[in-house]
Amino acid sequence: MAVDSLSIPGYHIYREDEAQSASSLDYSQYNPHPLDQLSIQEIPATAKLIREFAWPKKVKFNCITLREPKKNEYAAFRSRKGPRPDRRAFAIVIEQGSCNVAEVVVNLSKPKVEEWKPVNDVMPTLTLEDLDIVERLAREDSRVIEACRGLGITDMSKVFFDAWAIGVEERYGFDRRLQQGLAYYRNSSLDNQYAHPLDFSVVVDTEREEILNVDIRLVNGERTPIPLEEHNYLPEFIQQGYRPDVLKPINITQPQGVSFRMRGNELTWAGYKMHIGFNYREGIVISDVSIFDHQEQKDRALFNRVSVVEMVVPYGSPEKPHHKKHAFDVGEYGTGLMTNSLKLGCDCKGAIHYLDGVVNTGKGEAAVIKNAICIHEEDNGLLYKHTDFRDGSVISARDRKLIVSQIITAANYEYGFYHTFTLDGTYKLEVKLTGMLNTYCMHSTEQAAPWGTEVAPKLNAQNHQHIFSLRVDPEIDGPNNSIVQSDAVPAEDPVGSEGNFYGNGFYCKKTPLRTAQEAAVDYCHETSRAWDIINPSKLNESSKKPVSYKIINNSCPPLMAKPGSVVYKRAAFARKTLWVVPYRDYELFPAGDYVCQSDGRDNHPHNQTVTDWVARNESIDNTDIVCYVQFGLTHFPRTEDFPVMPAEPVSVMLRASNFFKKNPGLWVAPSKLCVDTVSQNAFDASCCAAKNQVKL
Amino acid sequence: MAVDSLSIPGYHIYREDEAQSASSLDYSQYNPHPLDQLSIQEIPATAKLIREFAWPKKVKFNCITLREPKKNEYAAFRSRKGPRPDRRAFAIVIEQGSCNVAEVVVNLSKPKVEEWKPVNDVMPTLTLEDLDIVERLAREDSRVIEACRGLGITDMSKVFFDAWAIGVEERYGFDRRLQQGLAYYRNSSLDNQYAHPLDFSVVVDTEREEILNVDIRLVNGERTPIPLEEHNYLPEFIQQGYRPDVLKPINITQPQGVSFRMRGNELTWAGYKMHIGFNYREGIVISDVSIFDHQEQKDRALFNRVSVVEMVVPYGSPEKPHHKKHAFDVGEYGTGLMTNSLKLGCDCKGAIHYLDGVVNTGKGEAAVIKNAICIHEEDNGLLYKHTDFRDGSVISARDRKLIVSQIITAANYEYGFYHTFTLDGTYKLEVKLTGMLNTYCMHSTEQAAPWGTEVAPKLNAQNHQHIFSLRVDPEIDGPNNSIVQSDAVPAEDPVGSEGNFYGNGFYCKKTPLRTAQEAAVDYCHETSRAWDIINPSKLNESSKKPVSYKIINNSCPPLMAKPGSVVYKRAAFARKTLWVVPYRDYELFPAGDYVCQSDGRDNHPHNQTVTDWVARNESIDNTDIVCYVQFGLTHFPRTEDFPVMPAEPVSVMLRASNFFKKNPGLWVAPSKLCVDTVSQNAFDASCCAAKNQVKL
Repeated sequence: MAVDSLSIPGYHIYREDEAQSASSLDYSQYNPHPLDQLSIQEIPATAKLIREFAWPKKVKFNCITLREPKKNEYAAFRSRKGPRPDRRAFAIVIEQGSCNVAEVVVNLSKPKVEEWKPVNDVMPTLTLEDLDIVERLAREDSRVIEACRGLGITDMSKVFFDAWAIGVEERYGFDRRLQQGLAYYRNSSLDNQYAHPLDFSVVVDTEREEILNVDIRLVNGERTPIPLEEHNYLPEFIQQGYRPDVLKPINITQPQGVSFRMRGNELTWAGYKMHIGFNYREGIVISDVSIFDHQEQKDRALFNRVSVVEMVVPYGSPEKPHHKKHAFDVGEYGTGLMTNSLKLGCDCKGAIHYLDGVVNTGKGEAAVIKNAICIHEEDNGLLYKHTDFRDGSVISARDRKLIVSQIITAANYEYGFYHTFTLDGTYKLEVKLTGMLNTYCMHSTEQAAPWGTEVAPKLNAQNHQHIFSLRVDPEIDGPNNSIVQSDAVPAEDPVGSEGNFYGNGFYCKKTPLRTAQEAAVDYCHETSRAWDIINPSKLNESSKKPVSYKIINNSCPPLMAKPGSVVYKRAAFARKTLWVVPYRDYELFPAGDYVCQSDGRDNHPHNQTVTDWVARNESIDNTDIVCYVQFGLTHFPRTEDFPVMPAEPVSVMLRASNFFKKNPGLWVAPSKLCVDTVSQNAFDASCCAAKNQVKL
Repeated sequence: MAVDSLSIPGYHIYREDEAQSASSLDYSQYNPHPLDQLSIQEIPATAKLIREFAWPKKVKFNCITLREPKKNEYAAFRSRKGPRPDRRAFAIVIEQGSCNVAEVVVNLSKPKVEEWKPVNDVMPTLTLEDLDIVERLAREDSRVIEACRGLGITDMSKVFFDAWAIGVEERYGFDRRLQQGLAYYRNSSLDNQYAHPLDFSVVVDTEREEILNVDIRLVNGERTPIPLEEHNYLPEFIQQGYRPDVLKPINITQPQGVSFRMRGNELTWAGYKMHIGFNYREGIVISDVSIFDHQEQKDRALFNRVSVVEMVVPYGSPEKPHHKKHAFDVGEYGTGLMTNSLKLGCDCKGAIHYLDGVVNTGKGEAAVIKNAICIHEEDNGLLYKHTDFRDGSVISARDRKLIVSQIITAANYEYGFYHTFTLDGTYKLEVKLTGMLNTYCMHSTEQAAPWGTEVAPKLNAQNHQHIFSLRVDPEIDGPNNSIVQSDAVPAEDPVGSEGNFYGNGFYCKKTPLRTAQEAAVDYCHETSRAWDIINPSKLNESSKKPVSYKIINNSCPPLMAKPGSVVYKRAAFARKTLWVVPYRDYELFPAGDYVCQSDGRDNHPHNQTVTDWVARNESIDNTDIVCYVQFGLTHFPRTEDFPVMPAEPVSVMLRASNFFKKNPGLWVAPSKLCVDTVSQNAFDASCCAAKNQVKL
């Protein structure tokens, strides 16, 4: 029995009968911005064109997404020197029941299929529909039922499976599209299953809908009993009730409305301009970011495109089957596909503007995630302050954030992505990690250390890392940029010498990184290392330094997996804090376009990774460059992370550095100019009079 | 002419006639908490007792502050096993017109002077009154007038001097109490003087009120012309006006009031309890921090005392006179003394509770800084969230901050100190740096690089560091604690070996630091190093690890000044990220009790520093320990930091780690339990029915 694929929590799916054919798309009427995500009309129209083209073959639509215009075409259009680019869609399709994959480019403006490219030895993203298969199949599988019976389980409706990408699985090659299913138990329908992990996992063929293996982990030949103790977080389970000290409400309101404006998906706020895009894989894509320089009275380009293009969560237990757990949540599952529908008051407070996300189903229908993107402002404390100690005169201004955010659920884990802009010209990506630890049951002879923490009796939460890759396609005051490494170092001259007599000298050592291989670099704590994305053709008049934005990233743990390991190969992007390569159209994903089942081999003809791009060792000097900035954290679970984790933030920042002539915060009216009259009046008038007046 | 010392912006000074004598302090009526700062009655009463004791010598009161009870006495009182400690004051006095210094302990309960200890070869803190002398003297000094005339200045009212501690000055010893004055010019009364630094500085004797030297810096025998171009930030100077995109107001209100309660200076909030103290030197002191464990239904101790006990700002230009600039804003000037009177809407938003700070004048009067301490709550985004992808059920809670903050003005710079507690049991100290860069004029033959940045034409802002020392006297679940270093390291076994076949193994290497010398350690980026303050006598039942709080501090740049340099000696505390020593009463200040003019020598009889304490190499294992945590940043000025700097945050964190059995965030009622009915209802009822119901 094939399941009806149309039930996906969080998706509103538009049935085919609501869909238009491509020929009925009237771009003279409907004129999207070239970077707008595909509409609920364009997705089924794309599917229809592909189905017709593929006939008599039947295809499953792995993705249907915007084919962004080539950079030079779009730049010409944007600067009014070229025509509006044709509207195109990009699809990855799988021949039904097989693992044959093809990449398809559809020109919707024509409308026709422009490219059909079969790709080999690759596996596309697992969609929510794909992931949905595992639990259904596993519950019905006789070997699984048998494995459960061995633990005393007879009611299979109490057994749950989290579907994961396979990680590494030597038993099969690319002839099988694989997932693994991690098994859990629930005492009741809302019981927290992560308190009851089972001692086996399954390997599933997604396309043929088949359970291939039931891998039971035996310890000294024995099964591991289910940890049955309940550890819940939903209110109905909180027997002790909540703490009596009630937190009184904090209300955040904007009675005059928000300070940003949307024209379609183009946003303006406090001098910033940008376009907000969204796709199934990267989720939020922010393009065409510029800032109005009030002093020079013009818009100045900052970033061509910013998005989170990959992440990996390698687990640190070397014991089987845990070696298979190293989830690439962007490449293997799609950050866009896993996006939550957001709720006012829970996820965001204040005056919120939401944007929907549009993705596709396997049938080629459009599915809408309501409120996928949250756009709002927050007060951000002091922007600047100074008091003249002579007379107590004070000036201060308050800073503000514009936050463009999304939250995803990746099986057990949740990630919030907060793209944040502030009034001093800073862009910061903050990620908040929350949700549930991945847990495993412990045999009575086992202890959790050193590879994990026993977060509750017989429950092992294993060590893991979260390493994210932020792709920044910079356009610092123009298309051609370079990278300079900054290191804080003491003066070379010894103490007592003429050049450094008192020994206090230190400076910022600048090292231009001229090729992609030179720019494959790590953070250095000892020198507070940072990297300037400079425009070598534009000098700051005062500092005589090129205008730049500085990459500030000291939350970038080294990859713990050893050189030569599976993770080291598959997640090669995580080996370095920074990679910089020259821009190429459609070169986006540093762990490859196809991450599922990838082995990280060099020079895969259809699946190049960042190490392949860097191996070209092209010049990155004064040209159109792209930076991949890796950041994240290493997580040794604590009991406090159970049964649900307090949100842990981690962030990376790009900050103006000799980009503006002066503090751009000065273009914002100060909060208030308050002369400290209260305390001034408290003084004896006779002694103040002479002192505080400066005659000129 | 002696200036009337009673005019200090921000201070409300209580005249002597308002003061009570010590014998009239009736502690049966007025019963302060033993850690409360001295009252406006107690300060003049202390002064009176000291004056009487010293007679016929005349003294100047450098400080009059609370003598906190000895730890064992206070602990006995707190646990109701001992009597209320006598109320005591501590004063540092200077014999008038000399540099003779004495430390005095006054028992106000008796009332009498209990100790009078002359101290040699030391210089106490420069008070605001002391600093005030420099500008007044310098403007009247004939050599200064001459130096100004050489620059074309005839109107001395346009010349300003920022008074600084001397740093290093070989020409004089402890027979002179010294300051340096950095010279600036203003075109008009509110003009920004930091745009017009002059090429000379003065050396001043504070006590004898005498200009000792006028040091003119000649470049190739020439004076450096005043940079006259204006760079202002006050509204009247913003000729271009502000950016037209108006930021609409964000209102933050608490219609039901705040969620914390104050009983005197004892605060309770969301299970936390603490006492808020304040003194002239450290500013905010937070003591007796505990948290209510809702699961165990009891208060659990966290920290005995937390405060910022030192900081240093070494400048990186080896050229004279800049080698003298390395301000210790806590030890040399007093964070308490420099505290701003805060203003609603400018410094803080929302429902604020303010506390005043009480300090003293040189005459021994009480001076009140109104609204010195701000206590308020802020929404802190997601505390946790999880969505069950199977049915779209969502739970989330919002986090909240309690912030206890103060802002200080240290001549040009401002620092905001935000002691922050959150619902997951975390304490975080965030410091925000803003205010004005220290600038210097450039001769036409000079360039700013490599020791600084030309932030405006002919204005050099020099490289500098800010290194803070947070003193944490922990009491993690009891008085006796130990320190364990945590390093993330790959498994030792090679890839392909039985113990680490797939090469993914990694773990947290724990190294107990058993003596003060072992615990003199640096941060290590490669291992994401952290330190657990553990209670070795209390095991977490689940993790079988000792309960602990983890010090998380990756913003801790190494000191750039070289070994053997003046700064390296004077700011020895800044050499390491962490120091841990056993607790001793009144051992507080890691750069010494007397930082002004200190030379950092070992084993100064009246001025021990953290390196002396560590040299004792005592056990820190399962005993009453104190941690000094150094953090900060290295600042290479940008043009964006001029003329006023956008606030730059830096922080350090102490986080529960296997301290609680579960996430303490679960004791807070969730925001809302929202089942995603909107999207659920969008699905075909027939296909959902079977899938989303778990029968049990």
